[in-house]
Amino acid sequence: SRNIRLAVIPGDGIGTEVVAEGLKVLEAVGTKIEPTHYDLGAARYHRTGETLPDSVLDELRGYDAILLGAIGDPSVPPGILERDLLLRLRFAFDHYVNLRPVKLFPGVATPLAGTPTENIDMIVVREGTEGLYAGTGGVMRRGTPHEIATQESLNTAHGVERVVRYAFEKARSRPRRKLTLVHKTNVLTFAGDLWQRTVNRVAEEYPEVTTDYCHIDAASMFFVTQPERFDVVVTDNLFGDIITDLGAAIAGGIGLAASGNINPEGAAPSMFEPVHGSAPDIAGQGKADPTATILSVSMLLDHLGLHDEAARVEQAVAADIAERGAGRGTSEIGDDITARVSG
Amino acid sequence: SRNIRLAVIPGDGIGTEVVAEGLKVLEAVGTKIEPTHYDLGAARYHRTGETLPDSVLDELRGYDAILLGAIGDPSVPPGILERDLLLRLRFAFDHYVNLRPVKLFPGVATPLAGTPTENIDMIVVREGTEGLYAGTGGVMRRGTPHEIATQESLNTAHGVERVVRYAFEKARSRPRRKLTLVHKTNVLTFAGDLWQRTVNRVAEEYPEVTTDYCHIDAASMFFVTQPERFDVVVTDNLFGDIITDLGAAIAGGIGLAASGNINPEGAAPSMFEPVHGSAPDIAGQGKADPTATILSVSMLLDHLGLHDEAARVEQAVAADIAERGAGRGTSEIGDDITARVSG
Ligand SMILES: CC(C)[C@H](C(=O)O)[C@@H](O)C(=O)O
Ligand SMILES: CC(C)[C@H](C(=O)O)[C@@H](O)C(=O)O
Repeated sequence: SRNIRLAVIPGDGIGTEVVAEGLKVLEAVGTKIEPTHYDLGAARYHRTGETLPDSVLDELRGYDAILLGAIGDPSVPPGILERDLLLRLRFAFDHYVNLRPVKLFPGVATPLAGTPTENIDMIVVREGTEGLYAGTGGVMRRGTPHEIATQESLNTAHGVERVVRYAFEKARSRPRRKLTLVHKTNVLTFAGDLWQRTVNRVAEEYPEVTTDYCHIDAASMFFVTQPERFDVVVTDNLFGDIITDLGAAIAGGIGLAASGNINPEGAAPSMFEPVHGSAPDIAGQGKADPTATILSVSMLLDHLGLHDEAARVEQAVAADIAERGAGRGTSEIGDDITARVSG
Repeated sequence: SRNIRLAVIPGDGIGTEVVAEGLKVLEAVGTKIEPTHYDLGAARYHRTGETLPDSVLDELRGYDAILLGAIGDPSVPPGILERDLLLRLRFAFDHYVNLRPVKLFPGVATPLAGTPTENIDMIVVREGTEGLYAGTGGVMRRGTPHEIATQESLNTAHGVERVVRYAFEKARSRPRRKLTLVHKTNVLTFAGDLWQRTVNRVAEEYPEVTTDYCHIDAASMFFVTQPERFDVVVTDNLFGDIITDLGAAIAGGIGLAASGNINPEGAAPSMFEPVHGSAPDIAGQGKADPTATILSVSMLLDHLGLHDEAARVEQAVAADIAERGAGRGTSEIGDDITARVSG
């Protein structure tokens, strides 16, 4: 069988450091995956003014998957790299499922007092191509006392239904079979109504799945006070962004949170990345925890059908976490996990 | 001096129960406040189809302040009471400051393991009249596979500047003198740019205040992992909604979270309400904790210039909380706090 082609975008800040460890593990697990590096992010932007040239986007389309480190740097005005690079990839490759497990590994200290490990075990299915991320909106009379600035949330039946269906499929495959829609239907009445009606309609096809609704404000509270309420959460792009960082916090920190930007039909490559950002404050110091990237590699393997390899990586991470010593640096953690995968 | 006129809107669910206790305390603290009850909420809506008749809105305008319990009931389609009653009041009376302290009282168990009491002591200044709460947006081809639903976030220089100024004034008056803008400038680039520029500009007038910025996703994480990062938080309407419920969770629960919808110029009555909703699941059982309402009464007294009375109510609450027995019902808690205020 032909080699699996992987595009690697280390990106900015700690992105480079953590991706290097992800690749170590990928090599150790013994797959026929052949990585090609792409230099995209703040450095290229400063050098050439380019964020994501069309020719590169076209090339990336030909890969089987993408591994991304992190995008964003304080030297670039907010939004440029995020929108023209990261979000452009998500949109161009129609990554309508942004899959983010929120799972407490045994041995990890959650900041939530007295919460048993098994109480934090959910998966957030965040919509990835619509809502307030569409980027529509504008500004008028900028810089004057009469300035107005708008942002628009765009939601389509097409976009909502496909991600809701994906979430129901996920829910069906899990022991608890529970799906919670998180939104703000009492204020965002137009979008909320579309989301709620879609969930209600699709639910009829999944009688074995219990469905539930929770406002985003209440959900944020319940993530802290009763995380066991949640099994599969489906939500829009922005609410998903917020709640998965909160999820990372309760599940032991952003250093462990993996994600997949998925095109379920395989019409374009899916992209895997840690939930954390480029963390410029600790970049270049070998301090970043590469575990989130390594878990994203496990999700990537799983997506490519390499289920045994995916499981081996996840088990290696779980074993590493259970025995975590303090004070290890980025490459030490990577080496330790690599050793377990090989061994 | 004339009596202070207070409009009381108990509203739905536990609203009635908690407001009754708030009024007990108000009476015990010995003010010349004369309450008038208004029957608004789900019951009236079902009886007459009315949410907030114009004549009632006009009448309410004549009061010195409003005490509100909670609005919302599952028997009414989502958004109707919220938008046509609660949000209408906030908008009509230009409550552009939604003030929500997030403070851990000594003796209250935070769900955050090992967090010292003094680490959770911030105040969120939430914008109350703009953003996605404007209610603009729409739906096309509803119920078809081609449906699109939009929501619009409207932000004005006028609206942003006044709340930012209020937040700087608050920050200046607190020992740490720190202000954090919470937004999502890297995705909501138009609105984010307006907020960030406004904070930067007003900051020049407040050299003694340290300013800081945090994305809403990161802020949600830091509320859990490093709440001591925050002193005064200023943010938009929706982010403020989310983060204050999260704030309530870390500060010991929604049963303790007070809020004020404030018109700082006094052009219309300000309105005080607990952050919790109508909680239909426990309504009518005498189980709801009235503490959040009683703390809202303290904020109300403070707003009316009755600073000693406000302090007495807050001290009574603090003392009650420090000795909290389990298993007290709504009116027991109210009676206990009332006894301390009178005694
Ligand atoms: C960097 C930013 C644009 C991005 C997002 O908001 O989606 C990040 O926060 C994430 O969650 O992947
Ligand atoms: C009831 C609802 C409309 C309201 C809001 O979203 O503002 C509530 O959640 C709050 O925080 O006061």
